[in-house]
Amino acid sequence: MCRLMLYLGPEATLSALIVEPEHSLIRQSVHSKEREEPLNGDGFGIGWYASEHNAEPAVFRSITPAWNNRNLQNLARVVASDCVLAHVRAATQSSGVNDANCHPFRWRQYLCMHNGDVANFRVVRRKLLETVCDEAFSNVYGSTDSEHFFALFIDSLLGLDETDPALRMAHALARSISRALDLVRTTGAGSDSYLNVAISDGEHAVVSRFTDEVGGVPESLYYFSGQLYPDVGPNARRKGTQAVIVSSERLTADVGWVEVPPGQIIILRRDRAPQFVDARTARPLAPPAGARAAGKSAA
Amino acid sequence: MCRLMLYLGPEATLSALIVEPEHSLIRQSVHSKEREEPLNGDGFGIGWYASEHNAEPAVFRSITPAWNNRNLQNLARVVASDCVLAHVRAATQSSGVNDANCHPFRWRQYLCMHNGDVANFRVVRRKLLETVCDEAFSNVYGSTDSEHFFALFIDSLLGLDETDPALRMAHALARSISRALDLVRTTGAGSDSYLNVAISDGEHAVVSRFTDEVGGVPESLYYFSGQLYPDVGPNARRKGTQAVIVSSERLTADVGWVEVPPGQIIILRRDRAPQFVDARTARPLAPPAGARAAGKSAA
Amino acid sequence: MCRLMLYLGPEATLSALIVEPEHSLIRQSVHSKEREEPLNGDGFGIGWYASEHNAEPAVFRSITPAWNNRNLQNLARVVASDCVLAHVRAATQSSGVNDANCHPFRWRQYLCMHNGDVANFRVVRRKLLETVCDEAFSNVYGSTDSEHFFALFIDSLLGLDETDPALRMAHALARSISRALDLVRTTGAGSDSYLNVAISDGEHAVVSRFTDEVGGVPESLYYFSGQLYPDVGPNARRKGTQAVIVSSERLTADVGWVEVPPGQIIILRRDRAPQFVDARTARPLAPPAGARAAGKSAA
Amino acid sequence: MCRLMLYLGPEATLSALIVEPEHSLIRQSVHSKEREEPLNGDGFGIGWYASEHNAEPAVFRSITPAWNNRNLQNLARVVASDCVLAHVRAATQSSGVNDANCHPFRWRQYLCMHNGDVANFRVVRRKLLETVCDEAFSNVYGSTDSEHFFALFIDSLLGLDETDPALRMAHALARSISRALDLVRTTGAGSDSYLNVAISDGEHAVVSRFTDEVGGVPESLYYFSGQLYPDVGPNARRKGTQAVIVSSERLTADVGWVEVPPGQIIILRRDRAPQFVDARTARPLAPPAGARAAGKSAA
Repeated sequence: MCRLMLYLGPEATLSALIVEPEHSLIRQSVHSKEREEPLNGDGFGIGWYASEHNAEPAVFRSITPAWNNRNLQNLARVVASDCVLAHVRAATQSSGVNDANCHPFRWRQYLCMHNGDVANFRVVRRKLLETVCDEAFSNVYGSTDSEHFFALFIDSLLGLDETDPALRMAHALARSISRALDLVRTTGAGSDSYLNVAISDGEHAVVSRFTDEVGGVPESLYYFSGQLYPDVGPNARRKGTQAVIVSSERLTADVGWVEVPPGQIIILRRDRAPQFVDARTARPLAPPAGARAAGKSAA
Repeated sequence: MCRLMLYLGPEATLSALIVEPEHSLIRQSVHSKEREEPLNGDGFGIGWYASEHNAEPAVFRSITPAWNNRNLQNLARVVASDCVLAHVRAATQSSGVNDANCHPFRWRQYLCMHNGDVANFRVVRRKLLETVCDEAFSNVYGSTDSEHFFALFIDSLLGLDETDPALRMAHALARSISRALDLVRTTGAGSDSYLNVAISDGEHAVVSRFTDEVGGVPESLYYFSGQLYPDVGPNARRKGTQAVIVSSERLTADVGWVEVPPGQIIILRRDRAPQFVDARTARPLAPPAGARAAGKSAA
Repeated sequence: MCRLMLYLGPEATLSALIVEPEHSLIRQSVHSKEREEPLNGDGFGIGWYASEHNAEPAVFRSITPAWNNRNLQNLARVVASDCVLAHVRAATQSSGVNDANCHPFRWRQYLCMHNGDVANFRVVRRKLLETVCDEAFSNVYGSTDSEHFFALFIDSLLGLDETDPALRMAHALARSISRALDLVRTTGAGSDSYLNVAISDGEHAVVSRFTDEVGGVPESLYYFSGQLYPDVGPNARRKGTQAVIVSSERLTADVGWVEVPPGQIIILRRDRAPQFVDARTARPLAPPAGARAAGKSAA
Repeated sequence: MCRLMLYLGPEATLSALIVEPEHSLIRQSVHSKEREEPLNGDGFGIGWYASEHNAEPAVFRSITPAWNNRNLQNLARVVASDCVLAHVRAATQSSGVNDANCHPFRWRQYLCMHNGDVANFRVVRRKLLETVCDEAFSNVYGSTDSEHFFALFIDSLLGLDETDPALRMAHALARSISRALDLVRTTGAGSDSYLNVAISDGEHAVVSRFTDEVGGVPESLYYFSGQLYPDVGPNARRKGTQAVIVSSERLTADVGWVEVPPGQIIILRRDRAPQFVDARTARPLAPPAGARAAGKSAA
């Protein structure tokens, strides 16, 4: 179990996104509110896109806690990006604390991070790896369920014809969730999976909020759409771009935060309001009730 | 503010001392009970004496949290010692998280660790260094108030004629506390110092519980005297040796734990019951009320 | 490519084994002599057996270089053992520098370390994992060819009936080498494997010196049998035990060092002189020519 | 002894500066050519100015070697700056490897790094600290001679009235060198100091090449003035700005590299050619003989 945050919008400093908010991810690394255990101190990772210099996103990861990492504080102050993923980790017993196990994970232009767990993973791991293509297999360097789930996503994405990049990611994520559940089922496991997964290609993003526990509630997930943070870009080059943050916990007391409904995937694009699809089928859904009000509040 | 533990007794594994107790120091690194902020995740350190192979104690320190450090878990399982100091750190803002700032600190055969803070340290630091001898000065490698306090102790110890090693350490600690308070006073600081300090030479140990805050209560400190842990030594070579643990928090629910009274230093020797002296004057005091009962309970 | 050292004999301090020799492993981490590239600075690991306290060996690993690690220096001074494995790493491009990729690797009472590489590993990896049992599969946490080779060993060992533990290990190692070469061959790779592998259970050890490169010479490997280091054990409890060191490079200028012949596995037991078997078939071989002289020199 | 590099010019990626050159600083961390010992593996640090987002420079430091640090590789790819300082460390025995001892050091808008050593530092340290103001004293967090030398610089700078910022830095550096030599002399030390020191405020920089060893040659130092690397800035906002690199070793085979003469300080400004002053008096000197040719070659 961990905490995560994804930002898509005009260029903003990492600091504005992960340090300054009153209940920032850095704060959540010590005192998360919506987990039984408030601590997420088993390393962290930040991924961001700096398209001017390179298409491939940068990743900064460390096994030391986010709250006391001087390098992170320095970077956050000076690095700005229009697409940022950040994650603080609470390691489960089965997978060790090392750099290879820190989120976000990268493949080509994609970054992936996860909050939750794949049920019965010690057994599922092997079966999962058997089902993916070599490309996806070769991208696994560590031992977390999260990185293995990402291999499922890579394999699913490569098998899809969909040309709209955001929809392709959404379908791949939904398919990966279904495949993961099927794999767990074949191991005869009774326990349940929790799959809050955030994936981006730098221009679009998809984030799921999901569990298959009967009567269970998935890990918390919220989004905020609108002008939460100042655009720091030199020429505000993406005028009119809508900013969206998706986060395990509300970063501020602003009323504009809306819960992502259980069982759904939120789809983010630069040029329009968030869309919602079913987390297993990718079938389009109506926006959550609070979305309209939120949009207003944020306007 | 931090948590600390010191053990003097027959040989025991580090694991028995810092991992296995139900409220062990490892547990306190995540969930300390007697601090407002339960987290002590800014590194840790273990010091121990292995007299067979070397008179100088070994120190193992890391800036990663104690609770997830695999090397610590491995060491704890196989290393045994008859004198162990362990510390989990909650860094204050002023001093960074790096190896040089992790406790315990070492000088010759002495190890020192600290829970608390020296008031107005940013100003006191310089004055303090001016008052100590070159030997003490040269032993400072980092920027914590704790390591600087240890320099005061080194300087005080070198200036004492007392031949009984335990009393010499107790007098040096009392003198260091007085000197620290004097130094704070000369800077005109109104804020208060907290000085729970544990020092050992491998055969004896002294631990203070102290604050000069008016009406204030020092950081918590307990001791347990008796057979808490099994002697793991191959030939129980120190037969009859009494085991004593001094710890920021009770490690177990055993009724034998006794509070070290505020304003006192507890003195440990291998061959007799703990003694108590005044933290500023080193004047002998009667044992605390619970001591006798505790001795019985532990017998 | 890396450097490794294994010790089996009366109890000795880690310091006597890996720090003090004039061309110690610590020295080899900076200035190895028998590699084109003298540097082995991508982390290190030490494994040792402390049977009094625990049957499972301890492992201390770090991604910082061995030559400047204070914790290692401290440990080496005070820890003694009668079976030690030590490794300094020069990471290959394909596998990252993180704790999970540091040698030695552990499974049950076994420790394994490797100097060399499995040819075409990026392709072989997947095929290799398909051939091993779940127990072996589950022991893989990182992405090195070395740890995957160890999975082959585990799988081979579990499939053997041999009751002599040293011979069982030797057969399992030989079988693993054959299996690895077969796997490489099925990928159509022309490049060659280098397999200097050291494995111990604390009482016995096997070390291979092998390459299948046509006309190639395997990585260097030497052994020394006799009284190189003082027995530090309190009661010299293993009187008469012969000490043997196997090392990538000669640790001293002593004439007693003998080259392990290419294509062979050296088998170490506490109670007799080293034995030699073929690295692929485990068929017994005569000791190398220098062995007798060496034995004398060391006597 | 270490290796360092400073860049002042149009915006360039860290990668173009410290990774891509054929004999880059990363390469020098493993294989420096102009030191007896080619290895600089005891940590590294990068400092850079990102004036759009923050006046204070960012610093990224680590105790792991530069050559295998994934975070550094990632950062280098996406971070661009018009003023960069980079350093790879070879720790001397007296000061440990920890983050506080990694260069560059920071105070306000200034960054400082050092290659060399202050003679007899264990004794000089204390005397040096006694001579500096509180502001300079409080900026010392570790135990290197380099960071203490920086305290001398801070103290010297604060005592100067010079209004031209580049000249002020040059005078402060020259004064610091003189003061350091005086301090060494008062300790009666016969050994000699090596003071290649680079300091910048983001807009100007000064770098000394100095030793007071009789008949000695200071550590190597070169500069390159002209178009070595492509300007990556989005709008080439500093058109006409001259790029200068100062480096312990030539980064390329380009003939334009000129040796900084022994005993001199090179002064860099954005709007004109490098100037040279005496390292002890800051008295202006003629440019070195190669400077004109170099300027032409680079044009």
